Amino acid sequence: MTLRWGIVTAGRISHDFVNAFNSYPDKEDQEIVAVAARNKSRAADFAKTHGIPKVFDSYEAMAKSNDIDVAYIGSLNSEHYELSILFLENGKHVLCEKPFCLNAKQTRSVISLAKKKKLFVMEAVWTRFSPAYADLEKDIKNGKLGDIKFIEADFGIVSPDDRSTHIKEYGGGAILDVGVYVLQLPQFVWKEDPKRITTVGSLYDSGVDLTETIILEYEGGKRAVLNIHTQQEFWNKATIYGTKGHVTLEQPFQFPHIVIDIDGSTKNYPLHSSKLPYNFTNSPGLVYQALEVGRCIRAGLIESPRMTHDESMGLALLEDIIRKQLGVHFDADDKEYPW
Amino acid sequence: MTLRWGIVTAGRISHDFVNAFNSYPDKEDQEIVAVAARNKSRAADFAKTHGIPKVFDSYEAMAKSNDIDVAYIGSLNSEHYELSILFLENGKHVLCEKPFCLNAKQTRSVISLAKKKKLFVMEAVWTRFSPAYADLEKDIKNGKLGDIKFIEADFGIVSPDDRSTHIKEYGGGAILDVGVYVLQLPQFVWKEDPKRITTVGSLYDSGVDLTETIILEYEGGKRAVLNIHTQQEFWNKATIYGTKGHVTLEQPFQFPHIVIDIDGSTKNYPLHSSKLPYNFTNSPGLVYQALEVGRCIRAGLIESPRMTHDESMGLALLEDIIRKQLGVHFDADDKEYPW
Repeated sequence: MTLRWGIVTAGRISHDFVNAFNSYPDKEDQEIVAVAARNKSRAADFAKTHGIPKVFDSYEAMAKSNDIDVAYIGSLNSEHYELSILFLENGKHVLCEKPFCLNAKQTRSVISLAKKKKLFVMEAVWTRFSPAYADLEKDIKNGKLGDIKFIEADFGIVSPDDRSTHIKEYGGGAILDVGVYVLQLPQFVWKEDPKRITTVGSLYDSGVDLTETIILEYEGGKRAVLNIHTQQEFWNKATIYGTKGHVTLEQPFQFPHIVIDIDGSTKNYPLHSSKLPYNFTNSPGLVYQALEVGRCIRAGLIESPRMTHDESMGLALLEDIIRKQLGVHFDADDKEYPW
Repeated sequence: MTLRWGIVTAGRISHDFVNAFNSYPDKEDQEIVAVAARNKSRAADFAKTHGIPKVFDSYEAMAKSNDIDVAYIGSLNSEHYELSILFLENGKHVLCEKPFCLNAKQTRSVISLAKKKKLFVMEAVWTRFSPAYADLEKDIKNGKLGDIKFIEADFGIVSPDDRSTHIKEYGGGAILDVGVYVLQLPQFVWKEDPKRITTVGSLYDSGVDLTETIILEYEGGKRAVLNIHTQQEFWNKATIYGTKGHVTLEQPFQFPHIVIDIDGSTKNYPLHSSKLPYNFTNSPGLVYQALEVGRCIRAGLIESPRMTHDESMGLALLEDIIRKQLGVHFDADDKEYPW
């Protein structure tokens, strides 16, 4: 039976997700059947652009309908929590864009409701489903890199001043906007929580974080040094240093199509061609997480073994600590959440 | 009149310095005329290898002789101070390997004596005389990179356990061994002192530092993130991020022969060919600092405008703070120095 996706919001990342999905040759019996947005004409345009049959003019209407099985939430960060809850409460599986929520309390609440409802929920850390990361995981497991003691990852973009990244009410800030990419890498490699976190950063006028250098220290002298920036384009690479050599995930390391292997050779991971242009780099790769969601739901899983609930909780707790170290506080941090 | 060099110690870096010097086509009326080492047969072998006419079996004898004008000090770190003082006291100019001394007190004392004696003294930060850095300086000055807000530099090597790097009595530790390379880069680019220093690192059994991540913050939100390691080979590159783009000094960034320019093109800086093999990477580049020393001395300068006394003091103070932040203490830190 076809797994039916509903797209929540008609924004830039939703466009890329749908474009990546619809352009991929084998959707494994999944289909995008509906889109919802507050602005009906925007949703209608989006549906027309992407050939989506149904348009909802409210999230509630889509959540309550029997037309969809799984919701893709591509809204502003500040809406991730409420929208995830809305769809879960109405019996729909959820794939929610990163950052999952604004903080660990919200994240815990969403995961708790999904468990109670026996529904699948995942943070859209698409990185984890990249073919390059699959190879990297094998190389780490088989000891090709030796003991991995040091990781570096940089992610810097220039966010225009009017972009939600810089707006506190929208859940902006560097750590929530791009932080998940750098934080998920040591988590992916070491599968453990850091024992010490040191953050040096700067704030924007609006009170959200603009830049960070984050040092994560782990047992046994392992260390990750992560740089993020929202007003400076970085060379967005990551290098993983082992005692036997190093591997570099070339720009964009969050979904690399080129990897410099331990012997200096280049591995290529071509992306599928797409019908429409994209807003973000290497967005064709967004389809892989959708396929993972489909496989997990069909297998009766409520979480992906490649991006678990515990890992999302780990990321959210780190993001909270980093914000605290910099003095970035959200209203959501003072609230309690029901689930 | 030929400027006559005396080489102090017959170790690995002295070998590279002399090899680079003697292999260079135009020495600009400079000559290596003598070598001194505690072990006379080692000095004799060194002299034979490099065709050096005179061998001294003590540093004192060389310092007091009229055979040399300028001493190149390539000894253990722990001997830099006493040997620099010895040669200055005996009226000789000095080029001393980095780190200049063990701490800022010693460095201040050496510089003070040189000033008093009107003799030239310089820390052998050969990087500063690299043709690639000369181009970089021009590009910074003419605004090609825009405002430079972020610098990253990594230097990681595997130092065998028996190497002086790990021995406290020899003035070992990552910050003194390789730190100068990463610290001199933001100093070179921004020409100012950091306003805040954050160090995360680890110590070796001997009590010296093994690894560091150093974050330097400067006025106006400028930041340098520097990683050093003495038990892990890094990709020893540096990237300088400006608002107009970034430049990468390819491995080895301390004396690069390849630079990735702001437009993605590659600039090449070939090194001269040499008679003998080298111990360290890109050592042919060591000759440029010798030529600078010659030009400065002939011009009657007691410091090089491209690696000033203030800059060496700045580096020494940073090294002191970083050691303090990690809890690395030398006996030399408790002593007072006369000049």
